[in-house]
Amino acid sequence: MPLCFAERLHDAQLASGSLVCVGLDPDPGKMPRDLRDHPQPFAAFARRIVAATAGIAAAYKPQIAFYSALGAERQLEAGIAYIRERAPRALVILDAKRGDIGNTAEAYAREAFDRYGADAVTVNPYMGEDSVLPFLARPDRGAIVLCRTSNRGAADFQDLDAGGLPLYRRVALRAASQWNERRNLMLVVGATFAREMAELRGAHPELPFLVPGIGAQGGDLAATLEAGLDGKRAGLLINSSRAIIYAGGGTAAALGAAARELKACIERKRFG
Amino acid sequence: MPLCFAERLHDAQLASGSLVCVGLDPDPGKMPRDLRDHPQPFAAFARRIVAATAGIAAAYKPQIAFYSALGAERQLEAGIAYIRERAPRALVILDAKRGDIGNTAEAYAREAFDRYGADAVTVNPYMGEDSVLPFLARPDRGAIVLCRTSNRGAADFQDLDAGGLPLYRRVALRAASQWNERRNLMLVVGATFAREMAELRGAHPELPFLVPGIGAQGGDLAATLEAGLDGKRAGLLINSSRAIIYAGGGTAAALGAAARELKACIERKRFG
Repeated sequence: MPLCFAERLHDAQLASGSLVCVGLDPDPGKMPRDLRDHPQPFAAFARRIVAATAGIAAAYKPQIAFYSALGAERQLEAGIAYIRERAPRALVILDAKRGDIGNTAEAYAREAFDRYGADAVTVNPYMGEDSVLPFLARPDRGAIVLCRTSNRGAADFQDLDAGGLPLYRRVALRAASQWNERRNLMLVVGATFAREMAELRGAHPELPFLVPGIGAQGGDLAATLEAGLDGKRAGLLINSSRAIIYAGGGTAAALGAAARELKACIERKRFG
Repeated sequence: MPLCFAERLHDAQLASGSLVCVGLDPDPGKMPRDLRDHPQPFAAFARRIVAATAGIAAAYKPQIAFYSALGAERQLEAGIAYIRERAPRALVILDAKRGDIGNTAEAYAREAFDRYGADAVTVNPYMGEDSVLPFLARPDRGAIVLCRTSNRGAADFQDLDAGGLPLYRRVALRAASQWNERRNLMLVVGATFAREMAELRGAHPELPFLVPGIGAQGGDLAATLEAGLDGKRAGLLINSSRAIIYAGGGTAAALGAAARELKACIERKRFG
């Protein structure tokens, strides 16, 4: 019997001794110099990143937009296959921010979970419950619901006061109380807003958070951990994309070192 | 010089004499019997739909999830190419409900506008301004922002009171006042909530709405037009997907008749 999602998440963190999630965001304008003329540059770059970080990363998060823009779905499939080969206990999170209803949401779930074989997919809650539940129907797969994101525009709607609580708190409450029967739901909570993260942790001690915004977006790692770790000093996946994969121009040595350094920083603060 | 988006929309309605948008939602479980063993069933179905409705539809709205679930991107490209051939003045709206930021949003815009050559793409506003503006950067292409959707769960967050106005009104206000410099923004406003549509039309007489929820979802056409038409008896694209394309089991004759009937119903109420 396959592990349920919560067990998969725990196992991935155990196997790597890490809370690090490595984002696979192959921006064509930033590819490592030696891969620019490669016939399958994204797949080659994914292999390099995974080979250099296997055993260090608890999870990998491919950003599907970069593949979709160029019709490079096969390279995404190849990258994920390589993760399964080299880091079989790591989670694969498809960062797709899907959000639609009924049979359309079910088609998106099949895209993430069957076509790409992802363990989890990021989901946008704006359309409400019937846009989220189809992604939570499989006990061994997870949905990671956008809650308080790390970008500047996040404040436009997520912070609006909605009956005494900001909208992102309403999203978290609904998610925690009504959508998480199978314990396969996580929230996206950006590293750039430690106060908001601390509030969310206080209100939802049991929910794991996926945390973007460390590194290129400027989130503070110490403050993030202080605010977001749960009672077991876990409950977080700390994502870094650009600051790891483009370190030193994207050489294997440099990006492996960047991932090890992030892991070590986190572990020191986590147990130090 | 290419027409700007607002001119394209007007021209598409003029060429077809219609406000009808035909949704291309090729659900594998509902395909017409005679296409089930076709090697490219989605492309063949799209050709049938477009051939039977060219000149009747102002726009076509392919739902990308059905293609992505099965790795059928080439069939989506083929369907769009056929629209351009048979109905060159119709708009192509990629229903993708994308929402992400920065270079990721730009990659999604390239997916919709360059890879698929769509005229417009549906966009989810939850992440705020920097997740929407990249889709509005091209004057000849549009972004159609989710505002008040037609599904049951829409009430979960969109209707929450956010400082005296429901969230969906906040989204519309922000969109109209700050994002629409190029007049290439539309709102998604579901047909299932005529009161909400009337409020939105009152507040935003100049914004065109894309209206899902007629037909299979049960929205009332007369009430929708009453509530949503603008001062020129236009300003709407009325989408119907399942009720047209699966009419009579999806034969060309039946689906063509269903599209003509919807067009005629709308025109009677629009100018009757």
